[in-house]
Amino acid sequence: MKKPILFLLTITLVSTNLWSQNNSPQKTEVNRKVSELLSKMSIEEKIGQMTQITVTNFEAKGKPGVFDMAKLDEAILKYHIGSILNVPNPGAPTIQRWKEVITTISNEANKTRLKIPVLYGIDAIHGSSYTAGATLFPQQIGIAATFNTEIARKGAEISAYETRASSIPWVFSPDLDMPRNPAWSRIWESFGEDAYLSSEMGAAMVKGFEGNDVGSKYNVASCMKHYIGYGSTTTGKDRTPSIIPERILRQYDLTLYQAAIKAGAKSIMVSSGEINGTPVHASKRMITDILKTELGFEGVVVTDWKDIIYLHTRHKVAETNRDAVRISVMAGIDMSMVPEDYSFYTDLLDLVAKGEVPMSRIDDAVSRILKMKFELNLFESTVANLKDYPKFGSQEFIDVAYNAAAESITLLKNKETVLPLNKNEKILVTGPTANSMKYLNGGWSYNWQGENSDTYAADKSTILEALQNKLGKENVFYTPGSDFANFDDVEIEKAVEMAKNASKIILCLGEKNYTETPGDISNLFINDAQIKLALALAKLNKPIILVLNEGRPRLISDFEDKMSAVIQCYLPGNEGARALADILLGDVNPSGRLPYNYPRYPNSLEKYNRKYTESLGDEEQNNDATYEKSYSPQFEFGTGLSYTTFEYSNLRLDKTTISEADSITVSVEVKNTGTTNGKEAVLLYLSDIYASITPEVKALKRFGKISLRPNETKTIAFTLNQKDLQFVGNDLKWISEKGTFKIQIGNLTKEFLLQ
Amino acid sequence: MKKPILFLLTITLVSTNLWSQNNSPQKTEVNRKVSELLSKMSIEEKIGQMTQITVTNFEAKGKPGVFDMAKLDEAILKYHIGSILNVPNPGAPTIQRWKEVITTISNEANKTRLKIPVLYGIDAIHGSSYTAGATLFPQQIGIAATFNTEIARKGAEISAYETRASSIPWVFSPDLDMPRNPAWSRIWESFGEDAYLSSEMGAAMVKGFEGNDVGSKYNVASCMKHYIGYGSTTTGKDRTPSIIPERILRQYDLTLYQAAIKAGAKSIMVSSGEINGTPVHASKRMITDILKTELGFEGVVVTDWKDIIYLHTRHKVAETNRDAVRISVMAGIDMSMVPEDYSFYTDLLDLVAKGEVPMSRIDDAVSRILKMKFELNLFESTVANLKDYPKFGSQEFIDVAYNAAAESITLLKNKETVLPLNKNEKILVTGPTANSMKYLNGGWSYNWQGENSDTYAADKSTILEALQNKLGKENVFYTPGSDFANFDDVEIEKAVEMAKNASKIILCLGEKNYTETPGDISNLFINDAQIKLALALAKLNKPIILVLNEGRPRLISDFEDKMSAVIQCYLPGNEGARALADILLGDVNPSGRLPYNYPRYPNSLEKYNRKYTESLGDEEQNNDATYEKSYSPQFEFGTGLSYTTFEYSNLRLDKTTISEADSITVSVEVKNTGTTNGKEAVLLYLSDIYASITPEVKALKRFGKISLRPNETKTIAFTLNQKDLQFVGNDLKWISEKGTFKIQIGNLTKEFLLQ
Repeated sequence: MKKPILFLLTITLVSTNLWSQNNSPQKTEVNRKVSELLSKMSIEEKIGQMTQITVTNFEAKGKPGVFDMAKLDEAILKYHIGSILNVPNPGAPTIQRWKEVITTISNEANKTRLKIPVLYGIDAIHGSSYTAGATLFPQQIGIAATFNTEIARKGAEISAYETRASSIPWVFSPDLDMPRNPAWSRIWESFGEDAYLSSEMGAAMVKGFEGNDVGSKYNVASCMKHYIGYGSTTTGKDRTPSIIPERILRQYDLTLYQAAIKAGAKSIMVSSGEINGTPVHASKRMITDILKTELGFEGVVVTDWKDIIYLHTRHKVAETNRDAVRISVMAGIDMSMVPEDYSFYTDLLDLVAKGEVPMSRIDDAVSRILKMKFELNLFESTVANLKDYPKFGSQEFIDVAYNAAAESITLLKNKETVLPLNKNEKILVTGPTANSMKYLNGGWSYNWQGENSDTYAADKSTILEALQNKLGKENVFYTPGSDFANFDDVEIEKAVEMAKNASKIILCLGEKNYTETPGDISNLFINDAQIKLALALAKLNKPIILVLNEGRPRLISDFEDKMSAVIQCYLPGNEGARALADILLGDVNPSGRLPYNYPRYPNSLEKYNRKYTESLGDEEQNNDATYEKSYSPQFEFGTGLSYTTFEYSNLRLDKTTISEADSITVSVEVKNTGTTNGKEAVLLYLSDIYASITPEVKALKRFGKISLRPNETKTIAFTLNQKDLQFVGNDLKWISEKGTFKIQIGNLTKEFLLQ
Repeated sequence: MKKPILFLLTITLVSTNLWSQNNSPQKTEVNRKVSELLSKMSIEEKIGQMTQITVTNFEAKGKPGVFDMAKLDEAILKYHIGSILNVPNPGAPTIQRWKEVITTISNEANKTRLKIPVLYGIDAIHGSSYTAGATLFPQQIGIAATFNTEIARKGAEISAYETRASSIPWVFSPDLDMPRNPAWSRIWESFGEDAYLSSEMGAAMVKGFEGNDVGSKYNVASCMKHYIGYGSTTTGKDRTPSIIPERILRQYDLTLYQAAIKAGAKSIMVSSGEINGTPVHASKRMITDILKTELGFEGVVVTDWKDIIYLHTRHKVAETNRDAVRISVMAGIDMSMVPEDYSFYTDLLDLVAKGEVPMSRIDDAVSRILKMKFELNLFESTVANLKDYPKFGSQEFIDVAYNAAAESITLLKNKETVLPLNKNEKILVTGPTANSMKYLNGGWSYNWQGENSDTYAADKSTILEALQNKLGKENVFYTPGSDFANFDDVEIEKAVEMAKNASKIILCLGEKNYTETPGDISNLFINDAQIKLALALAKLNKPIILVLNEGRPRLISDFEDKMSAVIQCYLPGNEGARALADILLGDVNPSGRLPYNYPRYPNSLEKYNRKYTESLGDEEQNNDATYEKSYSPQFEFGTGLSYTTFEYSNLRLDKTTISEADSITVSVEVKNTGTTNGKEAVLLYLSDIYASITPEVKALKRFGKISLRPNETKTIAFTLNQKDLQFVGNDLKWISEKGTFKIQIGNLTKEFLLQ
């Protein structure tokens, strides 16, 4: 037996103790500088630091992207603002243009009494996505599908490099939401439905962004978001109420933040939602008691867009804006993304003057902000030296993004090995996502909703273009077939006619670009227009390869049985179409796996780690609806096919009985039994057979990705700790209970006993 | 101004204090008898009392409905069982047959040492629904739609009469579930989505069942169910997990039980579900701490079917059946619906012998059971004297059921006053619910799934028959058009052809009979077959009156805009079709109102008492899906049209500012401005404008139903108490907060200030 590959994965620490204080010399020095500076500041200067304004507020009227210097003066000299965010109109400046913008702001800050630098923050979501020419990666859901944390880390590292090249030191990423409703418009910004996978991926991104020295010119401060429970709204609509008991919040949602804090995350953005009737921006329990005190988080807590004002106008927990400021600052907010006026500044000044907010709270907030500015070395430099960034948008970086896309794209079905395509086929490419960069990138691309990808990424390939490049234009027919929501019988008929001359059909369906509330839907089924197109083509009885470009799993059960292959691209970014084409043609072997359950029906949205009672009852189903099984997702979490085959054998545990002090090492052999090189994500699931809180059917506890040549065998080993056997009890503490546990890897299972 | 009608509605007490102990002489006497009897009992006799077995367990092999006396002997003489439930095969005995069954059991009990009577319990769900010839009312959801608590009370009173006529003293009713997912298969067994309406209706039913003396020969003990959170599963599937934080459970779900306990409810059945990972059968917090201690409930806590065993086999919180017995009895269960073996008896005996369950817990349980038996006067008589029940199945009772149906049926839409029909029209009646009693009664009718209604209620009218009786057979064409789930183009075409000769189409859609897990669905849209039929008929451009007979709101948005009228029957029971026909023809003026939001889309399931953040965002909707508004139910809670018109005026408050000691009286004038007599349910909504827990947009606080002749005006007055202004805070206590409140009745609003 060869030496096993031991996956030394980050162990997600979920202790409820305080994080151990890091009292390194650098840290002591930063704290000294913060104290010294704080002692010199007026109350106005302090409150200014807590104020974040959008850059478009300073634009000259009628002149998009041009500063009105009087407005900038007012912000920085009169209101002493500490932070600016967002992108100047019309969006996505080059790094040269960004340098000008940040230089203008820096010069203004240098006019102030204490010359405190302004902290610029940006939504760099899948790469430095608000900078023209930057490298755009798959969106987070695709990164999760790679089941490869090194891809997450490396992508964030490149994003940090290109963001610093844009003279920006702070990114509002990673997203640590744990979506529970697949209709939610921001599923694709998350790592999917599993807490462990998300924790590992989130921690890897934080390390990629921040590196070993967040103050270096190649690193940025990350911002965990959206703390907490944001992605779990009951109705699936963005920014609507969530219902999550604290026990469940601790067992799942909180672990993502704990892992990212352990990885060093410097800041956190608060959820715009409300949990159990309390907006998180108003929750002292969530922000001060749990995040700052219990978890010992020492970084900056920033609001999301306008969310303090919304405590008054939307959530209605504050009778006035002033009350909203008091409630949120007392809850523990350090910085307000106001972002379009100075009401936060004036209200907070008045609240402090009248003793309604104590100075100690202000000093805590400002210290955290100053600390981050010192750590980012902003007092030394806020503007990039462009010569330091030769790799910006380089082929080296593009190759990394390509590889990320190639490892994320997930083959869900491949009936009679219809894929890969033969290199000499004539194919029809059709469907609304076939020929636009918008639907590969989605939202947060060049601007908020991502509608300009075709302009900014004009040199990148759409799916159609990538396939034309591979097969020759003469072998690729194309017609859109339908729009997303609207159809036209003539267009569908045209697609059907063209398909008659093709050997196979590449049907590209999915969703338009969106994020946040504009992405809300009320019906999880893919739009009728696309269903009609699929059904019309299916009548030809030709092989159809369904290619999905979508932010969330839109239901395809109306026609999935008529598709020969199904391939999920998620939102694979600028290099996604090339990766897809290489997979379709067999030049790349797919290795992505679904990071969520893909539902079959709109009112059957169970997760893979369901409870046992959710898997029962098939025998009792309504016989009017035999197709409606209790638990039968269209594709289950972890689904992902390859062009080769893998065989699992010799699942071994180093102990069959352990005590509460032991860890346990699990090993398994994986062999490539096919004829093609392949990558395999090896997933280890654990089941606690009985527990005082109803146990999950199974839960992912470890994963790792390996490459295997034909006939090659590797032995993989994972070590599970006591922590992995624990769950949160009704007293809100993590506990394990004696009894039998079951390990599952591939189709193999083994039990052990905790005694 | 005339003297206002003051609605002296039961105020739902939600105090967290103990209920005041009732130390009446009768009660003291019962307690004395219980103590005396208990002191004579062996441990085996005590544990036997806690054991409930299904009657079909005692049937002779191969002889449905015939006792195997050896089996009955074993149960009563060897295992000392205290209770029997369910209906002998083949279901729905006559009262004569029930008398024989109960007499056999009674004789057996009289052979025991202490002659303790066996308590027989039955699912009498909408009337004495397991007795042939009994009066069957609308299912509970229809009762809720009447917005008339007297109908609820009177129906339960008749149900009690007919159940005692069947020699049965205990009914598993009312249902106090508060469904949150409209796909749930038992929505129709509840009073809908509003906690206040449900509380009032539930309390009225308890009073109807139990009367002033539960031991009289015309009253029965009620059983509140399913305590607690059963109807709120996340996925909508029956008996799957619920997620309900305790704050929310207290603000809504618990209030229903508090109201019913205050009304005197003698017993309670525990939910088969789990809340936040804890099965309720295993929850000491829910059963002992909250129900028995905090609420002071002194009655019997019984399990649901097999649910102690399921703690081991389904929920997996118990490693063995024996553990499951220990956990549930220690949680506070008094009686186990085992119901098919004696494992509970033998396990509990062993647990007590080994000191794992203390005798005090057994004595508490048995005392509660004996108390109920004494209160029901079972020691004096368990068998009905049939001469005492001349009104069983009488016209008087039938008229009450007819009136209940007539007040429940809800007119949701009536475009260009297509209704009422002219008496000389030729109509087509079609659709799968048009000609069967099964779809008027639903489940819990004659047997569990209700599939035998057409046999047992053969003398009752289907919709087709009722319309033939009204209009003459020659004027009513009929063809089924489609099945529920299956369609046939020929059948649809036949319906379309027949419609050509009709002036109007009565399209009867809905659901087949079901309850519990067999009623699970995964897609809330009404079945495709029915959609196809509706769309085919709509092409004729003739007025279509859509009649819905359904347990839950199946989505009709694919064709609702093509219907001239929509009328919701719910499950109106044996007299439902006659009431519907009278409404269609205008002989009865409809007055029902929807007790839930009828959703438009499957992934947009907001409640009427949503939070403000759920009503926002229309302006930001996905422009690919302009039809998908954030909050736009097909029909909102409270919708219900009349053939006359009502005008609301002079909304008055007796104070505009109140202190924390004050109540406030609200009055409004309602005038019948049409030309027909009509009944109007007057609904008072309250909005708390700002609150520390995000306030509901509005919440129902009072209602009352009045009759008005044309041009008649009545003044209605309601008094709100401090309790009505309160909500449950994060500390789990009911609080009110100073500030502005808004009253809404009809289209009128008025504000007042709590200071």
